Amino acid sequence: MTRFAEMPIDQLRDELAAQQETYAGFKARGLALNMARGKPTSDQLDLSMPMLGLVTSAADCFSEDGTDCRNYGVLDGLPEAKRLMACLLDDEPANVIVFGNSSLTAMYDALARCLDFGCLGSAPWCACDAVKWICPVPGYDRHFAITQAFGIEMIPVEMNEDGPDMDEVERLAASDARVKGIWCVPKYSNPGGVTYSDEVVRRLASMECAAEDFRIFWDNAYAVHHLHDEASEQDQLLDIARACAEAGNPHRYLKFASTSKVTIPGAGVAAMAASPENIAEAKSHLTVQMIGHDKLNQLRHVKFLRDGDGIAAHMALHAAILRPKFALVARKLEEGLGEAGVARWTSPRGGYFVSFDGPEHTAARIVALAREAGVVMTGAGATWPYGRDPHDSNIRIAPTLPPAEELEEAMDVFVCCVKIAALEQLIAQAE
Amino acid sequence: MTRFAEMPIDQLRDELAAQQETYAGFKARGLALNMARGKPTSDQLDLSMPMLGLVTSAADCFSEDGTDCRNYGVLDGLPEAKRLMACLLDDEPANVIVFGNSSLTAMYDALARCLDFGCLGSAPWCACDAVKWICPVPGYDRHFAITQAFGIEMIPVEMNEDGPDMDEVERLAASDARVKGIWCVPKYSNPGGVTYSDEVVRRLASMECAAEDFRIFWDNAYAVHHLHDEASEQDQLLDIARACAEAGNPHRYLKFASTSKVTIPGAGVAAMAASPENIAEAKSHLTVQMIGHDKLNQLRHVKFLRDGDGIAAHMALHAAILRPKFALVARKLEEGLGEAGVARWTSPRGGYFVSFDGPEHTAARIVALAREAGVVMTGAGATWPYGRDPHDSNIRIAPTLPPAEELEEAMDVFVCCVKIAALEQLIAQAE
Repeated sequence: MTRFAEMPIDQLRDELAAQQETYAGFKARGLALNMARGKPTSDQLDLSMPMLGLVTSAADCFSEDGTDCRNYGVLDGLPEAKRLMACLLDDEPANVIVFGNSSLTAMYDALARCLDFGCLGSAPWCACDAVKWICPVPGYDRHFAITQAFGIEMIPVEMNEDGPDMDEVERLAASDARVKGIWCVPKYSNPGGVTYSDEVVRRLASMECAAEDFRIFWDNAYAVHHLHDEASEQDQLLDIARACAEAGNPHRYLKFASTSKVTIPGAGVAAMAASPENIAEAKSHLTVQMIGHDKLNQLRHVKFLRDGDGIAAHMALHAAILRPKFALVARKLEEGLGEAGVARWTSPRGGYFVSFDGPEHTAARIVALAREAGVVMTGAGATWPYGRDPHDSNIRIAPTLPPAEELEEAMDVFVCCVKIAALEQLIAQAE
Repeated sequence: MTRFAEMPIDQLRDELAAQQETYAGFKARGLALNMARGKPTSDQLDLSMPMLGLVTSAADCFSEDGTDCRNYGVLDGLPEAKRLMACLLDDEPANVIVFGNSSLTAMYDALARCLDFGCLGSAPWCACDAVKWICPVPGYDRHFAITQAFGIEMIPVEMNEDGPDMDEVERLAASDARVKGIWCVPKYSNPGGVTYSDEVVRRLASMECAAEDFRIFWDNAYAVHHLHDEASEQDQLLDIARACAEAGNPHRYLKFASTSKVTIPGAGVAAMAASPENIAEAKSHLTVQMIGHDKLNQLRHVKFLRDGDGIAAHMALHAAILRPKFALVARKLEEGLGEAGVARWTSPRGGYFVSFDGPEHTAARIVALAREAGVVMTGAGATWPYGRDPHDSNIRIAPTLPPAEELEEAMDVFVCCVKIAALEQLIAQAE
C-alpha cells in the first residue's frame, strides 16, 4: 500500500470500492461492539470479588479507632481509609476527604461549592459576571459537561506531548480574572495518555493568575493505572501539592482520585486532597450536605488493598489484562493505517484510552460509519468543550471493555471506516 | 409532690436543695451518656448483618435485567431497587430515583438544583432577590442547616397535633412569591412524632401558592418506623403525590426516604419520588453530576428486604427494641415531672424522638446542666431555624442509641435538670 495522498484518482476509487466491500461484509454480520466508554472488562471486575466478602459480620464493621462503621457519622472518612486514599493521591492522610463512589460527583460538588460560596473568603463565583475555564483538548467529556452545566465559558487549549500548551495557559490565567480554573487529567490523560512533565506541573503551580482564587482541578484518575510493571516503563508525575507549596500558591489545587478503576467502578471509593485550609472549608460545607459516606465500603477497600504496595500489586493484575488490548489496538492501527498516512494516534503507557486523529473533517463520518456497522465509538467531538471539535478529527478509542476477540473485530471495522472516510475525502477533493 | 407553681417559696427552696444534692450525686459518677442524635442502637444494627453476606460473588452482582452491577452506569437505580424504594415512598417505581446512602444529600442536591437551574422552566432561584422557606417548628436541625447554608430566609410556623398550622402556611404561600417551599417530615415528625392529618396533606396540596414553582420537600424519613405492630396503633399518612395530582398541582412535591433507619445508617440507600416531569428534569442534571450510585448496595437491600412485606417484618424487629425505650422515657417523665406541672412532652407512636417543652427560658439551662452531669442532649434551639427557639423551651429527646440501663440513668439526670431549672426560675420570679 502507498500513502493515500500519493495515489492517483483511479487507485483511490479502486481502494474505496475494496473498502466498501469489506464494510458491507461487516454490516452483514450484525455486529454489536462497543469501544465508547472507559469501562473495565468483566475479567478486571472479577479481580476484586474477594473484597466483597471482607465485611460481613458485626465484628468486621469496626474501624481501627473503634468506630462502629454501621452507624451514622465520620464526615471525612475513616482514618485508615484516608491513609489508603492518600496513597492514590500522593498526599498526607490529614489532607484527605474520603467521598462516596464517584470522584466525578466530588468534582461537581467541589465546583458547586466554589460557585455557591467562593473559596477561602473570595466572592461566590456565581456572583461574578462570568466564569471561564481552561480546558486542555482533547479532554474528558464528563469534565466539560460539568463546567457547561454551570454556564462556565470553556476555553480549549492544545495538549502537547508533555501536557497542555503552557504558554497559552499562562497567558489566559494572567490576563483575565474571570478565568477561574483548569481541568487536568495529569497522568495518562483522557484520552491522549499524556503525563504532564515536571516543568508543566511547576509552571501550573507558579504561574501568575489574575484570579486569586484560581483552582486547578487535578483529576488524577489514572495515578496507578500503568500498562507495564517495570518502573522504567511507567510514567512519573510531579506532585502538584508540593509544586504549589514551593511556588507559594498552596491553595491553588484540588486533587481527586478514586478506586473506580482499581476495584469496582460502581462501588468504589473516591477522595479529594487539598491544603488544610481548603479541606477545612470543604468540610464546613459538606457537614450541611451529608452525615457521612459509606464507611463499610471504606473498610472493604482498606482490608482488600491495604496500602500502596497492595494497590500496586493489584494494579499489575489489571495491567496483565489490559496490556494485550492496547497492543492489539496499536497493531491494528499500524497494520491498517500505518502506510496510508492519513491518521496519527497515541501509544500510552497507562490509562484507559488511545487518542486517534483522522484527516480533518472526517471524525463524525468515521464514527457514523462505525455505528452503522455495529461498532459504537465515543461520539466525535466529545473530547472537546461543547462537543465541538473544530477540526472534526479526534476520536477516543476505549479498548478496555470488549473481550479480545470482539476488540479485534471492532478495530477491523474502525480501520475500514477510517479508510473509507479518508478516501471519500481525497476523491472529493480530486474531483 | 404538688405542682411547683403552687409551692410556697420555702418549699421551692427545699425542693431545689434536694434536687441539687441529687444532681451532685450524678456529677460525682462521671457519666458519659448521649441522647443527642437519632441513631439506632447496636442491637438494631445487628438485625441487618445478614444483608452484608448477600452479595459476595460475581454471580450475585447481576440485576434482574442482566446488568453487571459492578460496572459503571444506571443513573437512576436498578429496576428492582426502584420497586423496593417505591414501597417506602408509597409511589410507582417509574417515579423513583435511587440515590446513595443519604437522603439528606439527596435533599441538599435537589434544593441546589432549584437554586442553580430553576424548576420545569422557572428562573433559577439563585437569580431571585430573595428566597424564603416555611419551617414547621419544632423541626429537624439538618433541614434548617441546608436552607440556612444557601442563604434562604426561614419562617417558622407552629406545629399542631395534626401537622403545621395550615392557616399560617396558606397565608405565607399565597402572599409572597419569594416563599418557594416548605420542609415537611409528615409522619412521626422529627421531633414531635406528629403525623399530618389527611386534611393537612390536602390543604398543602391544594393551597394557592404565589410561587408557581413552590416545592414541598416531603421527607418521609419515618414512613415505616412504627413503634407498635397492630395497624390500629400505627399512624397512616395520606399520599402527597395523589393529593397534589387531585388538586391539579402534580409537580408541587418531592418525596424523600431512605433505609438508613431500616438497615444500616451509614450504608443504606436513599431515594426520591416525584412527578414524571420532575424526575426527568432531575435526571437531566444528575447525569452531569454522577454516573451511577452504588448498585451492589442496591442489590444487597433488594435481596435482604425483598418488598413491602419484608420491610414491615424487619421494622417489627426494630420496634421490639425501641418500644421499651420510648415506654421508659414516657414513664420517667411522667413519674418525675407529671405532678410538677412544669413541662409537657409528646407520646409518639413511631419515629425516633420525643419532643419536650420545659418552662419558657429554661431549655438552654436544662441542656447545659445535663451536659455538666455527663448527659449530652440535642442542643437547645436546634429544633428551630437558625438554632433560635424564641421560647427557649423545646428540647429533643433521642432515646434510641443508649442501652436501656444507660437511658434510664440519662432520663433520671434529665428529669433532675428540668426540676432544677424550673425551680431556679420560680424562685427567681418569687424573689
